[in-house]
Amino acid sequence: MTDPAITPGPLLATIERPADVRALDVEQLPQLCDELRQYIVDIVAVYGGHFGASLGVVELTVALHWAYDTPEDQLVWDVGHQAYGHKILTGRRDAFPTNRKYGGLSGFPKRSESEYDTFGVGHASTSISAALGMATASKLNASGRKVVAVIGDGSMTGGLAFEGMNNAGAMDTDLLVVLNDNRISIDPNVGALHEYLAKVSASGSWNTLKNEVWEMFDKMKGLGGGHLQRLASRVEDGMKAVLTPGMLFEALGFRYIGPTDGHDVVKLATTLKKLRDLPGPILLHSLTVKGKGFAPAEADQVKWHAQSSPFDKVTGKSLAKATASGGKAPKYQDVFGDAIIELAREDDRIVGVTAAMPSGTSMGKMMKAMPDRAFDVGIAEMHAVVFAAGMATQGKYPVCAIYSTFMQRAYDGVVHDVALQNLPVLFAMDRAGVAGADGPTHHGALDIAYMRAVQGMVCAAPMDEQDLRDLLYTATQHDGPFALRYPRGEATGMPMREGFEAIPLGTGRWITPEADGASGDVCILTYGAIGGYVAEARQTLEADGITAAHADLRFCKPLDESLLRDVFARYDKVITVEDGVVQGGAGSAVLEWAADADVLSGTQVVRLGLPDSYVEHGSQRQLHDEVGIGPDGIAQAVRALVGAHASAEAA
Amino acid sequence: MTDPAITPGPLLATIERPADVRALDVEQLPQLCDELRQYIVDIVAVYGGHFGASLGVVELTVALHWAYDTPEDQLVWDVGHQAYGHKILTGRRDAFPTNRKYGGLSGFPKRSESEYDTFGVGHASTSISAALGMATASKLNASGRKVVAVIGDGSMTGGLAFEGMNNAGAMDTDLLVVLNDNRISIDPNVGALHEYLAKVSASGSWNTLKNEVWEMFDKMKGLGGGHLQRLASRVEDGMKAVLTPGMLFEALGFRYIGPTDGHDVVKLATTLKKLRDLPGPILLHSLTVKGKGFAPAEADQVKWHAQSSPFDKVTGKSLAKATASGGKAPKYQDVFGDAIIELAREDDRIVGVTAAMPSGTSMGKMMKAMPDRAFDVGIAEMHAVVFAAGMATQGKYPVCAIYSTFMQRAYDGVVHDVALQNLPVLFAMDRAGVAGADGPTHHGALDIAYMRAVQGMVCAAPMDEQDLRDLLYTATQHDGPFALRYPRGEATGMPMREGFEAIPLGTGRWITPEADGASGDVCILTYGAIGGYVAEARQTLEADGITAAHADLRFCKPLDESLLRDVFARYDKVITVEDGVVQGGAGSAVLEWAADADVLSGTQVVRLGLPDSYVEHGSQRQLHDEVGIGPDGIAQAVRALVGAHASAEAA
Repeated sequence: MTDPAITPGPLLATIERPADVRALDVEQLPQLCDELRQYIVDIVAVYGGHFGASLGVVELTVALHWAYDTPEDQLVWDVGHQAYGHKILTGRRDAFPTNRKYGGLSGFPKRSESEYDTFGVGHASTSISAALGMATASKLNASGRKVVAVIGDGSMTGGLAFEGMNNAGAMDTDLLVVLNDNRISIDPNVGALHEYLAKVSASGSWNTLKNEVWEMFDKMKGLGGGHLQRLASRVEDGMKAVLTPGMLFEALGFRYIGPTDGHDVVKLATTLKKLRDLPGPILLHSLTVKGKGFAPAEADQVKWHAQSSPFDKVTGKSLAKATASGGKAPKYQDVFGDAIIELAREDDRIVGVTAAMPSGTSMGKMMKAMPDRAFDVGIAEMHAVVFAAGMATQGKYPVCAIYSTFMQRAYDGVVHDVALQNLPVLFAMDRAGVAGADGPTHHGALDIAYMRAVQGMVCAAPMDEQDLRDLLYTATQHDGPFALRYPRGEATGMPMREGFEAIPLGTGRWITPEADGASGDVCILTYGAIGGYVAEARQTLEADGITAAHADLRFCKPLDESLLRDVFARYDKVITVEDGVVQGGAGSAVLEWAADADVLSGTQVVRLGLPDSYVEHGSQRQLHDEVGIGPDGIAQAVRALVGAHASAEAA
Repeated sequence: MTDPAITPGPLLATIERPADVRALDVEQLPQLCDELRQYIVDIVAVYGGHFGASLGVVELTVALHWAYDTPEDQLVWDVGHQAYGHKILTGRRDAFPTNRKYGGLSGFPKRSESEYDTFGVGHASTSISAALGMATASKLNASGRKVVAVIGDGSMTGGLAFEGMNNAGAMDTDLLVVLNDNRISIDPNVGALHEYLAKVSASGSWNTLKNEVWEMFDKMKGLGGGHLQRLASRVEDGMKAVLTPGMLFEALGFRYIGPTDGHDVVKLATTLKKLRDLPGPILLHSLTVKGKGFAPAEADQVKWHAQSSPFDKVTGKSLAKATASGGKAPKYQDVFGDAIIELAREDDRIVGVTAAMPSGTSMGKMMKAMPDRAFDVGIAEMHAVVFAAGMATQGKYPVCAIYSTFMQRAYDGVVHDVALQNLPVLFAMDRAGVAGADGPTHHGALDIAYMRAVQGMVCAAPMDEQDLRDLLYTATQHDGPFALRYPRGEATGMPMREGFEAIPLGTGRWITPEADGASGDVCILTYGAIGGYVAEARQTLEADGITAAHADLRFCKPLDESLLRDVFARYDKVITVEDGVVQGGAGSAVLEWAADADVLSGTQVVRLGLPDSYVEHGSQRQLHDEVGIGPDGIAQAVRALVGAHASAEAA
């Protein structure tokens, strides 16, 4: 898909692949950068997408492809939402308007998409480890390939990045790590490393050193007087120069170069060309501005991390048509964020934790309302969970708001630190199920299976925003670990009552009138918000004369045995639906219960959910339809089951 | 259980709780340390257990309980196998002979065991995060409690420790981290941090600084000559003192104290007493010797990390009775270690990776035989997996040997970095199923469920050592991720053929003659080495006139559909057995298949495995028997099923 209304500048129009960049004189690179930046702005202004990060690394992207022999040399982009420039320079310029669209380019580097995408990314902090693996293999293969990892200062706070540095710094392997230091990730960065990078000269270590040196000079005053004072001043300056951020990385075995201006493409390109031939692990510290070159994005970096609706490419003003007044359902995220504050006002045990997702999860609301009681620990999911466990031992009730896909990072903390000790911690798993445009790296496909396996874990999912509120309250009343999953985006828009009601653990509910059961052909058992599709499916089916009952499991652990006993007694056809992989999921939980209760002989169970393969990107609805758990898919499964039984009975 | 033959020294005999330690004069502490060390040696010499780590922290343990008001103040021991002294001082002196025995004390701190065990541990690198959580909550609670984390330099290489430091260093919370630096974990430590700690004065940063300072002085020679030369020497010394390992920690926002002699208990105790009242995050760097005070353990720290058989408490010589010659079956670990070398000799794609488990997994054999191709990356499981993924992109076939329980740390790497990209990486999950005396933190209870959920993962488990070899070979022939689980300890002792045979993916096998099927009452489907118990169960059952067929699933993903079709066609009673939690496990996989194939109406399925609760410590056999998956448990389940059906049919 090419958009004729968006044309690249004259120099960018000649770049079909990085070899064309390398054919340019270094003095032409600033023009290429200007055109590349403008092209990104032009396209994102119309089509949406991540934004600030890619604008910040325009110069670095051009310089890397100019200095390195890609794709023979390997570039690994940490997280990857900064790789738009990389994609445009590597043969995907004209296809770029399809970025993040269903069937289009992925918003992240992806091995199957291009030979220039050497390593699939999406989650933070993987690049150093992956690049070290590549560099180690290249050495074994004697391939002569060079490997570069580009990592932001936000990703650098992830423990994995430290593990990679610690390993690389002790190995005799050629590796360049470019630290793209823009002092922000999606939300402003936090943590000691951030502060260290920001102002090492004011740090305790510098002051300690300074004091010791001054003390020394004081003692020696008798030897030379004024000379020594001047000397001391020079020594202080000299040591200040040495005590740059580099110290930390040199301590980890890296040769530190920088800091350098990440927007001076000529200097960057020539520096990188020299670094390419240096041996051993090297860290290049590049200072950049997120959103560089687009004034509104420079001014509000959190807002301009990504944009989903069209905007004026000069002023940044939104061009989205005003929607009809009211009407819009609240997001699950907002319902969560507001409810936690309401609950925390009444219950001072409640504390909030997130791992660099305050705006995404809305935990930021509590951080603002109760700054003492809500914590953003940075990109450090495992730490978030163990930190929460520590608080729980002191009588607190921690609510950990972490995306389902990122909870995979903290799985051992969930098991070893929380569940094994039966500590009361709520895992609020946002973006559970398909996440949408971010695609397979971000889908929360596995949490039902991996949480349900954990001994003693309670697992629940609300079908609507009222249930989300009530389940949050329910969790706070439970003395043990609780995994709650809910999707990204809009809830149902239902009217909600004031306050909260506790739901007894393991209580599902009939959505269709319970009496319908006896007359229904099929019972549909759903888990979570995906149940919202059933009403539409039932309408379609009714037109065919098929009645389907619908019950909401609400908990997949513990299950509502009384509800299930009822279902299996009345129906000989049961369909389970969940927005997660079917293997080991909520449908399996139902099967397990039915096998244990020995009620399977009369009832056939069909499980719908995500397949045992990776679902690509698109809108949530597109993806649900694709895998057959949208309204049509559910209706079709019911028809197939009724038909199959009808033919079986006829035969 | 008190052992009358082992008596504590006179001072230790008076210590019932830490308050008794605090009642001592600081000058009495060396005697207490001597007696505590001797008591640990005396008991481990008879009963076995971890060893070197606890001997190394005897002084630190005594000093901490003397200086801090435990249990009001909170001590968190990282990993926890160094906490023997802590247990003995906190009311568990006389019970200590039961350490690690079935029904006895846990080998690790455990909240349910003592109020002095503030946080359950077993996996490395959790202490800083947990302690920070405690300290944060204590601040919110205004409880005045002090919190101390004790972490080894090995655990410090885990990314979680860095995440904890990074967060703590930027928070205004009182926290003491004691870095117990003994330069070894189970195996010698690796990584840049280790090298940094070992010899910072020879590091690049130090040399850079030195050169700059010397240059400065050279320029100033005209000003003062000899004076300045002497001055320079003083400055150099002064800076050397500042440029201690502390620099790295100060950069992360910690106040660094040390290094200090971790065996000088008087100095330690008085230092700690002062530190207790200092605000903010503080790191005390304590240098210790693993195995301190027991000469054989100091001399061979890897061997003396833990001991399972009795030894002479002076010479260290083993007192284990010589076993009958030959006869002993090889360990799965050794079969694995030898097979990987054999395979790697023929296939130069194969590389080995482990995360600080070279001796435990036997990956150390390959590291010794092929040092260029096998890597110990330190306590950094997630890095190990992403590093492997990076190598796999370059045509290598990485074998990641990581204990099942620690693979939980790397789950996101398994999903996001390996499986999503369909990279050929073998996850060799050692110590799958119950691990034995290490207990619930170390049982590999979850891997069947969490690996089976991962899209595109092949999951297999050998029933014997021949199959382990053949499955390893099979994995190397598969172009995608492969999860192989096998238990700790002895295999069957069967004769093995030379070479390897590939097993088609998803091929199980009949263990009893296939023809038995038709006449059998029940079919037992097992997954992995646990299948070895079935022969004994079948013998018992035969005495009761019950015939049970036995098939080995071998793969739980993909399943052997042809075998299962056969089983479900012939049997109306199926029992599945696995050494893992039943929810979402191999038995569930069988149920899922049977539901999809609509063959459940005639067959009842009973799933045996680990329960939805935590299994404590003991021998593997004791634990298998306890949860009903030993030979008796299997036989009993068969009897119950046959009986239940018999009564149902009679009714």
